[in-house]
Amino acid sequence: MNSVQQRLADAGVILPAAPRPVAAYVPFVRVGDLVFVSGQIPLCDGGLTATGPVPSKVTVEAATAAARQCVINAVAVLSDALDGALDRVRRSVRLGVFVFSDAGFEGQPTVANGASELLQEVFGEAGRHARAAVGSVGLPLGATVEVELVAQVS
Amino acid sequence: MNSVQQRLADAGVILPAAPRPVAAYVPFVRVGDLVFVSGQIPLCDGGLTATGPVPSKVTVEAATAAARQCVINAVAVLSDALDGALDRVRRSVRLGVFVFSDAGFEGQPTVANGASELLQEVFGEAGRHARAAVGSVGLPLGATVEVELVAQVS
Amino acid sequence: MNSVQQRLADAGVILPAAPRPVAAYVPFVRVGDLVFVSGQIPLCDGGLTATGPVPSKVTVEAATAAARQCVINAVAVLSDALDGALDRVRRSVRLGVFVFSDAGFEGQPTVANGASELLQEVFGEAGRHARAAVGSVGLPLGATVEVELVAQVS
Repeated sequence: MNSVQQRLADAGVILPAAPRPVAAYVPFVRVGDLVFVSGQIPLCDGGLTATGPVPSKVTVEAATAAARQCVINAVAVLSDALDGALDRVRRSVRLGVFVFSDAGFEGQPTVANGASELLQEVFGEAGRHARAAVGSVGLPLGATVEVELVAQVS
Repeated sequence: MNSVQQRLADAGVILPAAPRPVAAYVPFVRVGDLVFVSGQIPLCDGGLTATGPVPSKVTVEAATAAARQCVINAVAVLSDALDGALDRVRRSVRLGVFVFSDAGFEGQPTVANGASELLQEVFGEAGRHARAAVGSVGLPLGATVEVELVAQVS
Repeated sequence: MNSVQQRLADAGVILPAAPRPVAAYVPFVRVGDLVFVSGQIPLCDGGLTATGPVPSKVTVEAATAAARQCVINAVAVLSDALDGALDRVRRSVRLGVFVFSDAGFEGQPTVANGASELLQEVFGEAGRHARAAVGSVGLPLGATVEVELVAQVS
């Protein structure tokens, strides 16, 4: 088990099969040493862990957990892109986090931390990333969070 | 006619002149082998093909057609970036699709497919891309869709 | 004083200390010759210069000024990334501008120009960039604008 796999296990994360896109695109594109991972929603065991806006339908806590699930799915895609060799992730570069928000909700950073902290837990220094966290009036399939990722790999 | 131009013709697409930015920025920036195309709205013959939110003002079908128009405009910009040599597009890397949505609308993937499918129709394998599709509470000039593109070129 | 510093002074801009992220991420990531700057909100002297949606709570004019503040903060981060040598900015590549908007507000391009024009004022030709401007239903800490930046550096 390589060190990233060890840290995934330590974090209690079992990587799912990489989610299949819900439409006409691909899970990732590699260009040079960058991998662009498509927007991930909190799919888990065939369903979404959270749907609806924060905070009227979903608590900040549940949304934060959903953000974590989104980025776990992104890591699963990245694993596919690297034929399982997640130790070849040199850096998570940029995380885009969209949070399905009631008008005026301003806690997107807290929600997005669910994704950010998982990356740092799993990849250590290489998991530190630039980020934009933004509210959205509606997301695919009613998902509470959508996360996209750019990573540098070797 | 190169093969991309042939496929554009087969798809019934006549590339417009690349739309001029509606404000203080440029249509694209090339850095290395990547071209970043600015957000495109569904301008056509001097007007927008769709304005207002989905679904209260614009149907999913009309929004999907608008997304197609947005990406046609993005391809027109890319053509400018390559002095017309669209065969030098090696890969469409990432598509960002923002859909002007009523609160809770969740059909962004369907709408975004209007853009994704045109890229694949025109560029074939090279048209397969990573994507994020997101709802927005309001877009420039009231446009129903905005699409931005990163492409790899040679 | 190098030429970028001179133009900052001419524009009346005193670069602040680079804002610290409001959560679990880093201000920037450099990968090759690209620097990805995290989403910046209009922090100034420890507070936000504008909070709430446009136009019901914040005028277009005030939002435009807030967008300028956001990008000043992004330039401060870029300066940190380059140990102060802003003359090593070869190009501002892509600007992402999210505007906290009332439903249907469509003046995002005007607001985003507050950021775009500052970049061109300070960096000249190198400040010309691709851009996406989008409405958002809510942004971190209630900020009126959030701006993220990708720049090419040497």
